[in-house]
Amino acid sequence: MLLPLTNQSTLTHIFIVLFGLEMQQTSHIVWHKHQLTKAERAQQKSQKPCLIWFTGLSGAGKSTLANALELELYRRGHHTYLLDGDNVRHGLTKDLGFSDKDRVENIRRIGEAAKLFVDAGLIVLSAFISPFSDDRKIVRDLFDAGEFVEVFVNTPLAVCEMRDPKGLYKKARSGEIKNFTGIDSDYEPPSHAECTIDTSMAEVEASVAKLITYMQLSGIIK
Amino acid sequence: MLLPLTNQSTLTHIFIVLFGLEMQQTSHIVWHKHQLTKAERAQQKSQKPCLIWFTGLSGAGKSTLANALELELYRRGHHTYLLDGDNVRHGLTKDLGFSDKDRVENIRRIGEAAKLFVDAGLIVLSAFISPFSDDRKIVRDLFDAGEFVEVFVNTPLAVCEMRDPKGLYKKARSGEIKNFTGIDSDYEPPSHAECTIDTSMAEVEASVAKLITYMQLSGIIK
Repeated sequence: MLLPLTNQSTLTHIFIVLFGLEMQQTSHIVWHKHQLTKAERAQQKSQKPCLIWFTGLSGAGKSTLANALELELYRRGHHTYLLDGDNVRHGLTKDLGFSDKDRVENIRRIGEAAKLFVDAGLIVLSAFISPFSDDRKIVRDLFDAGEFVEVFVNTPLAVCEMRDPKGLYKKARSGEIKNFTGIDSDYEPPSHAECTIDTSMAEVEASVAKLITYMQLSGIIK
Repeated sequence: MLLPLTNQSTLTHIFIVLFGLEMQQTSHIVWHKHQLTKAERAQQKSQKPCLIWFTGLSGAGKSTLANALELELYRRGHHTYLLDGDNVRHGLTKDLGFSDKDRVENIRRIGEAAKLFVDAGLIVLSAFISPFSDDRKIVRDLFDAGEFVEVFVNTPLAVCEMRDPKGLYKKARSGEIKNFTGIDSDYEPPSHAECTIDTSMAEVEASVAKLITYMQLSGIIK
């Protein structure tokens, strides 16, 4: 058990008087600073850390592509992490709703978390609809040049709606869900995405190969 | 450039009619699920991911110890990340102030971010005063048994105040800063910390050695 702070303080003052030099020496050593850097963490992992940001309509194939790319990077010995609704929505951003303010804060917080992961030396992948250019720009601006790779999963709406894996388009069309991206809320396509992929026109394997090539050419991986 | 969504949708419907079977086949392949697991990420890094949570007074030596431990883990080939005020306060939690509500949300968000890092297979270290037991319990409860390692940096207040690296104790004593932990706000010491260290009684190297031994004995590292 600890003594109350005031008593502890008095006792320690006596201790300092008795063993003053010893104490000062120990205290001094404590303040030496050694900090592991982002560069050291990245070098250890033989990769250039970055955020691969998948954006596109619901059902476009963002999560599928991100998962497949992560698996391929893992097979090649890279150190990655995938941020998506499954691991973020019920934790880091669980206090947020769907108001405009909360939507912006949601993307901002994901961006800031991703920035920490990049600082940790990892290749981070994220899969969020992120329909608005301004929100995506907030995230892009958090990163150094070349660290933010925007992947526009440009699968046509009709294909996404045909897939409708969670039945959300059906609900949006019937009016059960409001403000659904692509139905009654806009999707603003990226104007300068680093990569664009249409999953209705290419197999997952080919799309992953395209992304791997991009990552090699830009020096993210070897 | 993209066509407006409605036109795009119409065109794609025509495309589906013309190339229906091909489209369905591609769509089907997209929905195969392959997800990299926490266990795979941990195995790749030859470690058991966890959160090493340093708690203690301002000036107790939390950051110094956490940095020194991270460096030692790095030297041993481990994959780590350190969360502290420097990389969290101006990013992930920059919208938060110092009200009771914001203080709880601050610790919760750090805990949730740390949970993502642990899921990524990393050994995460954190250095926050985190003076209240309830807040620390919120974080502990986010993790599986053995994943949360509480390190009580139990350096006496008088020593912390003598160090006063940022001049904060002086300001707190003069009343310039209010609600300063140890002066006019409580620090609730952990009752069941996994490790306790008094940096006024042990060199940094010895404290790091103690923590490494703990991590080995509990199977976090080899």
